[in-house]
Formats: sequence, C-alpha cells, structure tokens
Amino acid sequence: MKVNIFQSLEEYQAVLAEYDSQDVYATVKEILAEIQRNGDEALRKYTTQFDKVTLTHFKVPESVIIESVEALPARLREVLEEATSNIRKFHEKQIRQSELSFENDGTLLGWKVTPIDHVGIYIPGGRAVYPSSVLMNVIPAQVAGVPRITIVSPPQENGFPHPLVMATVGLLKETDLYAIGGAQSIGAMAYGTETIPAVNKITGPGNAFVTEAKKQVYGKVGIDSIAGPSDILILCDREDLPIEYLARDMLSQAEHDPQAKAILVTTSQTQANQVAQWIENNLSQLPRTEILQASFARFSAILVVPTLEKGIEITNDIAPEHLELLTKKEMEDLHQIRNAGAIFLGPYTPEPVGDYFAGPNHTLPTFGCAKFSSALGVHDFMKTSSVIRYSKQRLEKNAQAIIDFAKSEELFAHASSIQVRLETPFHE
Amino acid sequence: MKVNIFQSLEEYQAVLAEYDSQDVYATVKEILAEIQRNGDEALRKYTTQFDKVTLTHFKVPESVIIESVEALPARLREVLEEATSNIRKFHEKQIRQSELSFENDGTLLGWKVTPIDHVGIYIPGGRAVYPSSVLMNVIPAQVAGVPRITIVSPPQENGFPHPLVMATVGLLKETDLYAIGGAQSIGAMAYGTETIPAVNKITGPGNAFVTEAKKQVYGKVGIDSIAGPSDILILCDREDLPIEYLARDMLSQAEHDPQAKAILVTTSQTQANQVAQWIENNLSQLPRTEILQASFARFSAILVVPTLEKGIEITNDIAPEHLELLTKKEMEDLHQIRNAGAIFLGPYTPEPVGDYFAGPNHTLPTFGCAKFSSALGVHDFMKTSSVIRYSKQRLEKNAQAIIDFAKSEELFAHASSIQVRLETPFHE
Repeated sequence: MKVNIFQSLEEYQAVLAEYDSQDVYATVKEILAEIQRNGDEALRKYTTQFDKVTLTHFKVPESVIIESVEALPARLREVLEEATSNIRKFHEKQIRQSELSFENDGTLLGWKVTPIDHVGIYIPGGRAVYPSSVLMNVIPAQVAGVPRITIVSPPQENGFPHPLVMATVGLLKETDLYAIGGAQSIGAMAYGTETIPAVNKITGPGNAFVTEAKKQVYGKVGIDSIAGPSDILILCDREDLPIEYLARDMLSQAEHDPQAKAILVTTSQTQANQVAQWIENNLSQLPRTEILQASFARFSAILVVPTLEKGIEITNDIAPEHLELLTKKEMEDLHQIRNAGAIFLGPYTPEPVGDYFAGPNHTLPTFGCAKFSSALGVHDFMKTSSVIRYSKQRLEKNAQAIIDFAKSEELFAHASSIQVRLETPFHE
Repeated sequence: MKVNIFQSLEEYQAVLAEYDSQDVYATVKEILAEIQRNGDEALRKYTTQFDKVTLTHFKVPESVIIESVEALPARLREVLEEATSNIRKFHEKQIRQSELSFENDGTLLGWKVTPIDHVGIYIPGGRAVYPSSVLMNVIPAQVAGVPRITIVSPPQENGFPHPLVMATVGLLKETDLYAIGGAQSIGAMAYGTETIPAVNKITGPGNAFVTEAKKQVYGKVGIDSIAGPSDILILCDREDLPIEYLARDMLSQAEHDPQAKAILVTTSQTQANQVAQWIENNLSQLPRTEILQASFARFSAILVVPTLEKGIEITNDIAPEHLELLTKKEMEDLHQIRNAGAIFLGPYTPEPVGDYFAGPNHTLPTFGCAKFSSALGVHDFMKTSSVIRYSKQRLEKNAQAIIDFAKSEELFAHASSIQVRLETPFHE
C-alpha cells in the first residue's frame, strides 16, 4: 500500500477523473414509477428484494422505539444527550424571525417565516449505522418548529431499523419511524403510499441510489442536497505538528467509504513523506482496513505545494466538505478561505469533534459543492413568503411607473390590473 | 369561452391531473453531453438549430450593451432605475453577516458567510422579454457581493439578445453577457466551453428544456429552483370588491403562459358567477387572447368554498406562487397562511406591484413548491461555512464522549484522531 504524493492539483485531478460514477438513473426511475403505480405493494416487493426481509407493516411500533431507548447503555445515552444539547444550542442561533416593516405612506413590506409542514428524513442502514445522522437531521427540523417529521431507515433481518437508530429517534421524542430504505423509500415519501405519508421535503444522507432518487423527486418535494462520498482537506504549513495527528486525521476520513477522499495539502515535502510513511506502516493493522486501502489507492492523497498561498488557492478550488486549517496564522488564513463546508481550526479540533459533538451540523456540501451550498441548518426546514401591502396612496403614486414597466414587457393585462384601481376607485 | 367554476379542490385537481408534462429528459441529456464533448462547436450547432442564427462570437461587445442603454426611452430608463432602487433596498435587508462566538473555555463556534465566486444567470428570450428578470436575478447577486456574474440570453435574428435585456444588463453595470440560450446555454455555464466560463451556480427562469437542463446539472453546480408555469391564487371573502379587480387580476396571471394558473377562491357563488361572466364577456377582445383562452380552458378556474376557513385550507394545500389575500380580516388571516411564495395584501396590491416594483423578488416557488421553498434572495447567492475551534482544555473535557460516540458508530479511526491528541500532547 503506497500513499500517493502529488506536486500539483492537476496530477491529483487526473487520477480522480479516471473514476466514472455509476449511472443509476434508469434503475431509480423505474423504482419511483413502480412506487407511484403500486404503492405499498411495490414497497414490499423492493424491501424483500433489496433488504432481504418481507414486511407486512412498515411502521415501527412506539413500544419498540421505547424498548430501544431503554436498552441503551447508560454511558452512550449520556453522550447522545450531551451531543443533543450542544447541537440544539448551536442550531437555535440560526432561527430567523419574520420581518415586516411599514414605510411612511402605510406600505408594508417584508417576509414571513414558517416551518415546513412535513419533513421526511432518511437514515441509512446497512454497514454504516449513524445515530449522529438522526441527531443532525431531526434536531434542526425540531428547532425550526416542523410540526410533522417522518423518519425512514432500512430494516435489518428482524424487520426493524438498527437499534441505535431507533433509540436515537426515541431519545428525540419522535415516533413516526418506518422500516423502509433505498430509492423506494424516497419515492414513498415523495408520492405517498397507502401507509407512508407524502412529505414536503426530504433530507438525510444515502447511497448512490438514494441520492439519485432524491434528485429525481426534486421539484415534487424539496431536498437538502446532492451529496457524494465524504472528504477532508487538511491544509498545513506547520512542521511542528506531530505526524500522527495528520495521519490519524486523514484515516478518520478515509474509513468512511472506499470513495472517501482524505487530502493533505502541505508546504513540506518532508512532512508529506513522513505522513505517507506512517500511514503505509500502520494501515494494514487498522480496523476497516479494506475501506482505508480502497480510499488511499485512488481518492486519498498528499499534495505538496510550494507556498501556503498556493495551498489556499487549491483549497478554494477543491472546496472540501471538511477543512482542517493547521497553519501558523490560522485566523488570517481563515479569511482567505471562501469554499469549505466546515472549517476546523487549530491542532485540537480534529474533524470528528464536528461529526458528533460540538454543535454545528455534520451534513455538509461534499467535494466541490461548498462552492455553492452550505451546511444543513434550521433554514433548510423553514421557508419564507414575501409580504407586500401597498396603501392606496402608494399605489396611486407608483401606478404609472408599474404600468409603463408592464407595457415594456408587453404584459397588457398586468397594466390593466393597476389601471382598474385608478379608474374604478373603491372606498373601504 | 367558459370559465370553470368548481365547488371543491378535488374537482379542480382532477382537471389538472389530465395534463401530462412533456418528458424532455432524453433530449436535454443529449444536448448537455454534446456541449461537454464539443464545447463551442456544439453551442454553435444548437444556436443555429434552435435560435435560427449562426454566430461566430457569443459574447456581446460592451459597446453594443452601452448603445442599448443609450437607446432606452428616457421614461423607461427612469422606471427601470426606480425599480432597481426599490429592489436593491429590499434585498439589502436580507444580508447576513458571519457569526462567531467564543465560549468561556476558549472554544470558538459559528459560521462564516461568503458570496458565491461566480454565478450564471439565464434570461429568457423569444416571445417573453422580461427586463424585470434581469433586475430580480442580478440585483440580489450584486447585493450578496458575487464578484463575477455571467449572463446568457438567446440571440434574436441580429445575433444579439433583445435590446431591452441588453439595456437592463447595462444599467446594472454588468458586462459579461452572452447571446446563447436553451438547454445548451445551461450546459455551457455548468461545464464551461472554450469561450463560456464555467460558473458555480445558475439562476433564472426558462422554458421546460432550460428547467430540465438545470435539474440535470444540479450537483455539478447549484441552481435556484425548478420552476413551472406561473400561478396566482386570489382568496376572497369580500363581496364589496369591484368584480373587475378580481377579473383583471386573474387575467394578469393568465396572460403569462398557456399553462399559467389563475385561481379565484371565493366564499360567494354570486361573485364567482360575476367574475366568470366578466371574463367570458371580455376575454376575446383582450391582447394575448390565445394565451388567455388556453389558460382558462384548463388551468385557470374559480373555486367556491363554503367558508373562509376552507379557503385558507385550500390555499395552504395548493401553495400558490402568488397569493392575493382579499379578506375582511386580512392581518388575522395572514397568520393562517403557511404556504405561499409571496402574499399580496389588500385591494391596492395587485400582483404586478410585486412583479416589477415594490422590491421583493418576483422569482418565487411555483404551484406547490412554496411548501418547501422561498423567494429568490440574497441568501441564494451566498453560502456559509461552519467554523469550529476547540481549545485544548475543551478537547480534553469532551474527548471521552466523542470517542465513545465514534465507537458506537464503529468508526475507530475517528476515535483515534481524538485519542492521539490525548496520548501525544503537543505544546504550541
């Protein structure tokens, strides 16, 4: 196992470009069409096919959720509750209120903020069991005031989602949990079936099929984002840091997924060599070694840059999901970072601090998407309606301008709707 | 020409359901693939094919933009400038700053707000010429501080976009305007060609092909929304309003598009009959009569409801793009409205007030999408990066909890990245 060391972003990108993403469009389209046609029957068919379990009921009984909470080891419950408290506290700062303001002539302008009526949350099952995903999706929805939250997660052999997922759902006092997964569960939440209610927006991480399904139902319902495999970029110009910090932080990202990207961008060739060496020496003895090997064979790498400025430029080009900024003048460099989902500053903030505990959301725009999108937050579970109330006085003042504008666009009925207010005055 | 009057939402929805949207997926996919393969050559080919004009250069020379500004009638220029000022003022209230806060143990938490580096804006051509779309997309991007804005709009016979579009671009001091349109222009902005720069996010309205192209490139770049034909819902429990206000307001929406939806929801059967009668009597003599007829034949209708409460329920179910709230207790009823893109209150706020002039954005979630999304705004042109800096003291305090959480997810390298900070302490 050899860790790749590149001297430029282009070399690294050339390796990445060889990888073609799986085209799952047609498969997913058919699954979604089947769910629309046959509802629960189709859902049962796909659950048997993909999850290898035949279910008569999808809804998890509340008693089973409560039992899962009771079965939680005391220490883990304490940790989950502390994380919940931190995450809730952070997200409460994101709440935005309606803003309406009067102008002097009685005109009212502003916007009204309301929670989304009904949100669906996807929690993956299978190999990856992430109670943290439950926290990071459900808590912002609760803080936003969403009145109805439906949660789905694939069934295990016993017909229920993973006990830790159920327990976390229970700790958050949610009860609408269904043992379904995959693209079929996204279809069920988008279109509704006999037993699965249709929601207004779907959030939560998933595999390539789930992601494609979210993309296809987008427009019918809202979605949070199109997420790819997870990634980290560690930007370092400090030779005083322990090599093991850098190596361990790369590994913590790489263990997520065979396609996860852990990238160290360093100004030091020596440091690059030492980190590569450490990983090469230790990788085979670590847990999840196959995943780590797959990630380092292709997607994870070390880039040596001539200057920190070049490193910052590469960081903004890559737009990583997670950025560890381990530089000498970190607060000054922070200012130069434009594109990153979350920024972890300094030697005592390894990325897992943010995955679980500190409070900010771990649902972040992956590889490149931080150029145009942001961490999941309370705003994703709310929406605004513009509010306009013109006074009679104001309409009379602006009428001619609006009429002239409408006519320039050849929208004559628009002009008439203003005109009629002038010609047929009305006394309230 | 008969205006449909229904007694329930279900009746209306049954009529709407007969309409199947055009499936343009495959056509658009091929166009996007061609643009990726052949860049400018493909762009030229499609421009000849769809816009019936053969271009050697796509970029509009700055001199042509300046000439268009100079050719603007003085009155129209004045109106555009006044609208610009109102729109800018409203959107400036939406600016959000970065928020970082220290906790007592030296931990720093918050988020950093930055504009998107490069935004692409689509302005339709063809029959609909909307300088207002230029204002409503460019101004929020400018207010957000986007450093680079690329604008595309289909060429007319002379090879340039509509003069009014060019003039409005010029008034806003933008210069990167390209005479391209359709799905091919979305592909060009998403992937870049020899002459069209790749952008990070694409906004702006378009036809079914443009909308599908935006959906397909979503993920590679950000997009604003998946917009359908425009719609309005007028909710009325006032019998004192002039019939012509209601009729004219319906018509002003219906004239947009053969598929535009103008819906009056009224508690009065008499009012419903009178509005229908007025429209039936006048429709054939109005400009854009074919569009109006198409809209009323299928998509526009009047619903009579037994109570205002039922009307409010239907409004929230439909989630209109535009809502005119013409009720006796409008401020109380406003509170009950959860799903609407923009809300126009009172008899002196016909919807065109918001299309052009008042300040709020006219790019709104169409028919149903207000259940999960909001008006275009400054936030669409910005993004946030979470920021976390743990102090050594805080990491030591939380380390065990984070390690326990990571292990519950079987992410052992995550746990090790915390552990190594405890075992290999490091003195800054």
